[in-house]
Amino acid sequence: MRHFLTLRDFSKDEILEIISLAVKIKKEAKSGEFKPYLKDKVLGMIFEKSSTRTRVSFEVGIHQLGGKGLFLSTDDIQLGRGEPLKDTARVLSRMVDMVMIRTFGQERLEEFAKYSTVPLISGLSDTYHPMQLLADYMTICEHGKNKDLIVAYVGDGNNIANSWLMLASKIGFELRISTPKGYEPNQDVLKNAYEFAKKSGAKILMCQKPQEAVKNADVVTTDTWVSMGQESEKKRRVKDFEGFMVDDTIMALAQKDAMFLHCLPAYRGYEVSDEVFEAHEKEIFDEAENRLHAQKAVMVWLDKQRKN
Amino acid sequence: MRHFLTLRDFSKDEILEIISLAVKIKKEAKSGEFKPYLKDKVLGMIFEKSSTRTRVSFEVGIHQLGGKGLFLSTDDIQLGRGEPLKDTARVLSRMVDMVMIRTFGQERLEEFAKYSTVPLISGLSDTYHPMQLLADYMTICEHGKNKDLIVAYVGDGNNIANSWLMLASKIGFELRISTPKGYEPNQDVLKNAYEFAKKSGAKILMCQKPQEAVKNADVVTTDTWVSMGQESEKKRRVKDFEGFMVDDTIMALAQKDAMFLHCLPAYRGYEVSDEVFEAHEKEIFDEAENRLHAQKAVMVWLDKQRKN
Amino acid sequence: MRHFLTLRDFSKDEILEIISLAVKIKKEAKSGEFKPYLKDKVLGMIFEKSSTRTRVSFEVGIHQLGGKGLFLSTDDIQLGRGEPLKDTARVLSRMVDMVMIRTFGQERLEEFAKYSTVPLISGLSDTYHPMQLLADYMTICEHGKNKDLIVAYVGDGNNIANSWLMLASKIGFELRISTPKGYEPNQDVLKNAYEFAKKSGAKILMCQKPQEAVKNADVVTTDTWVSMGQESEKKRRVKDFEGFMVDDTIMALAQKDAMFLHCLPAYRGYEVSDEVFEAHEKEIFDEAENRLHAQKAVMVWLDKQRKN
Repeated sequence: MRHFLTLRDFSKDEILEIISLAVKIKKEAKSGEFKPYLKDKVLGMIFEKSSTRTRVSFEVGIHQLGGKGLFLSTDDIQLGRGEPLKDTARVLSRMVDMVMIRTFGQERLEEFAKYSTVPLISGLSDTYHPMQLLADYMTICEHGKNKDLIVAYVGDGNNIANSWLMLASKIGFELRISTPKGYEPNQDVLKNAYEFAKKSGAKILMCQKPQEAVKNADVVTTDTWVSMGQESEKKRRVKDFEGFMVDDTIMALAQKDAMFLHCLPAYRGYEVSDEVFEAHEKEIFDEAENRLHAQKAVMVWLDKQRKN
Repeated sequence: MRHFLTLRDFSKDEILEIISLAVKIKKEAKSGEFKPYLKDKVLGMIFEKSSTRTRVSFEVGIHQLGGKGLFLSTDDIQLGRGEPLKDTARVLSRMVDMVMIRTFGQERLEEFAKYSTVPLISGLSDTYHPMQLLADYMTICEHGKNKDLIVAYVGDGNNIANSWLMLASKIGFELRISTPKGYEPNQDVLKNAYEFAKKSGAKILMCQKPQEAVKNADVVTTDTWVSMGQESEKKRRVKDFEGFMVDDTIMALAQKDAMFLHCLPAYRGYEVSDEVFEAHEKEIFDEAENRLHAQKAVMVWLDKQRKN
Repeated sequence: MRHFLTLRDFSKDEILEIISLAVKIKKEAKSGEFKPYLKDKVLGMIFEKSSTRTRVSFEVGIHQLGGKGLFLSTDDIQLGRGEPLKDTARVLSRMVDMVMIRTFGQERLEEFAKYSTVPLISGLSDTYHPMQLLADYMTICEHGKNKDLIVAYVGDGNNIANSWLMLASKIGFELRISTPKGYEPNQDVLKNAYEFAKKSGAKILMCQKPQEAVKNADVVTTDTWVSMGQESEKKRRVKDFEGFMVDDTIMALAQKDAMFLHCLPAYRGYEVSDEVFEAHEKEIFDEAENRLHAQKAVMVWLDKQRKN
């Protein structure tokens, strides 16, 4: 049985296999065909942090596969009142067929997975957001940008940056990351990425200035400077990220037809200018929609592994 | 593509067409026949204000049509954390097939509709509650009261009063509204209603005293004096509404077999006496049930428009 | 029409009939067969108190029966804002086919049932938790312990203890309860149990010391010392329950292969030691899973009664 907690656990071939399954399932959905790949299956969805996209895409996704999503906020269950995660894992394993958790520490996912007898999917943690990156790479492929790909990530070295490191180093493309001092990606993740890059041929570059990172890039991307739970640091963060907004001047340095991706929610005037956001809204909302299809693919893939 | 945000946007023929569809769907449901009119469709339901009836009737309704309702409270999604409505509209449009919003300002519905590529349904705003009025008129028709109809609305000139103005002026019946001074319906809505009345032959009367309004009426109706969000004004409002409670004395002035309708929740001893409420409980809960059937009809109707 | 509010209202034969239906439905589910016993039916689920197991087992259960569960927390509906329970009962009766309530006072269930025209199920009250006891007895039967059964309940004389009294006195087995002074079960419930015991042959014993209760018992069970809503009394309660923890020493007095059951959530180091809990985790999570199957059986049974 496999879990989906980070792309670190997946080979290039597996990632590409899932994306190609996502493309197939999306095509079926677009022609109004919803195959019951997961008929009668129930996905438990635990949200320790709330989210529009993760919530809607998982619940709609499992429904389109013929199954049922069960939305559990920590207010609705006893996890928030001190029940050990291992007990929740063992109870849910008896009642549902798959579990998705959106949480804080990655170690909570690992603890749950240890006691779960059904596949577990990460819907984001403080360290990684692997589902988002599958959707991003799927969008890049759909827009025909995956050949000789150069991606520039500008902004906070957070879970999204960490996940780009995993994706690039597994797939083997060029990733340039530019963050303010003190906001670099997780050092362990970086170390892992450099190692995987040796095998895949990926080029991982840390750039001091956003301008360096973005030069001739095929894809420019960023994320909020103030993630959920960091609201009290907002003032300091906004000051520290001065000069890191992706605006027209920055985008002008990238390839002429470069894509701009954003995992949302987007804060105009901070990590991205309104002009850049609205000029690229088509691809940003393609990216959002692909969460739906990529997640369906992951669920179908994990279920298939379980049977093998 | 059409939205359902206010009855102002609908012609008499369209309103009657939807009600007749509701009657048909109700009849089918009563005989245990649930046709999958909206098979595989997902309705996103955003609640910025909570509600028993709107919540249950929409979620049960879409289920009975073969689709799925996705309940989203603002706690569960990022709308409450400052995501622009237009981004939520564009994301949801990619993932669901129809959206229902229960919100504060009518302009929020209009903003969402502007960016939505799927039909939007109002589940109440500060200005209108069009779904409630469809259910009310359906109930009036079922009880055979729609010929030469006189309706008396007694109480607060709120979103329900505004919606009665739209319904009456479109359909063409007599509506008498009696509110305390300072609690009159929205002046723009009134102006619109007078204009529509010219075409439909509706008679719209503003009465100083509840007694005038209710005299010989076929239907008497009211709504809470203190809507959600007005709790701090309760004391003043209760004083201002003195004499506006619908009690046996008031009802005695109406037609002998007059109906009493209430959209619930009802506060006995304020806008209605317990005696009047319980004497008319059959029609009040018929009215509540008709929310279910009227909403199914609106969803089916909007979906059909989209295909045309 | 029947409701399921307490085992007091059920005969031994009825309880055994429901359990045997649960065993059948569980067997079908285990072989991947989900029969649509409640096709197109909607279960309204009102939670005035939150819960992992009750929530998940009812919502998954009704789904596996071909129906739909509608989760309503008091935040989501108007019950919490002063709508009379009898109005909610009458509205829901018009829109759903069955209702489950998890609440505080048993009288709230009775009030709702009085006005409901659809079957009502208790998902726990301050007085009883009948669904839990069905799952417990089902687990005991599955483990082959139901012949000449002796059950020892050690701890708080709460709703779980009350429900054990009902189960034992109806079925006719030996139940020994040991609580600290001042924490005895409800006296009315006890009186009822002694009465039922006369007919069934049950032996109901109140023991001063846990050691007496547990001696040669086939099943040992307990529950949290601090239920939801009692958090402020925690310090005093923990002191009062000194000596009542089910640990290896206590378990050693029971039958060699005695079962240990716990309805969860479990607080290690308080009502049960970690060693005892983990040594019996297989049967504890069997018990949790049986909530799912027992509840499906109750729903199918109530629906069948309604048709008869």
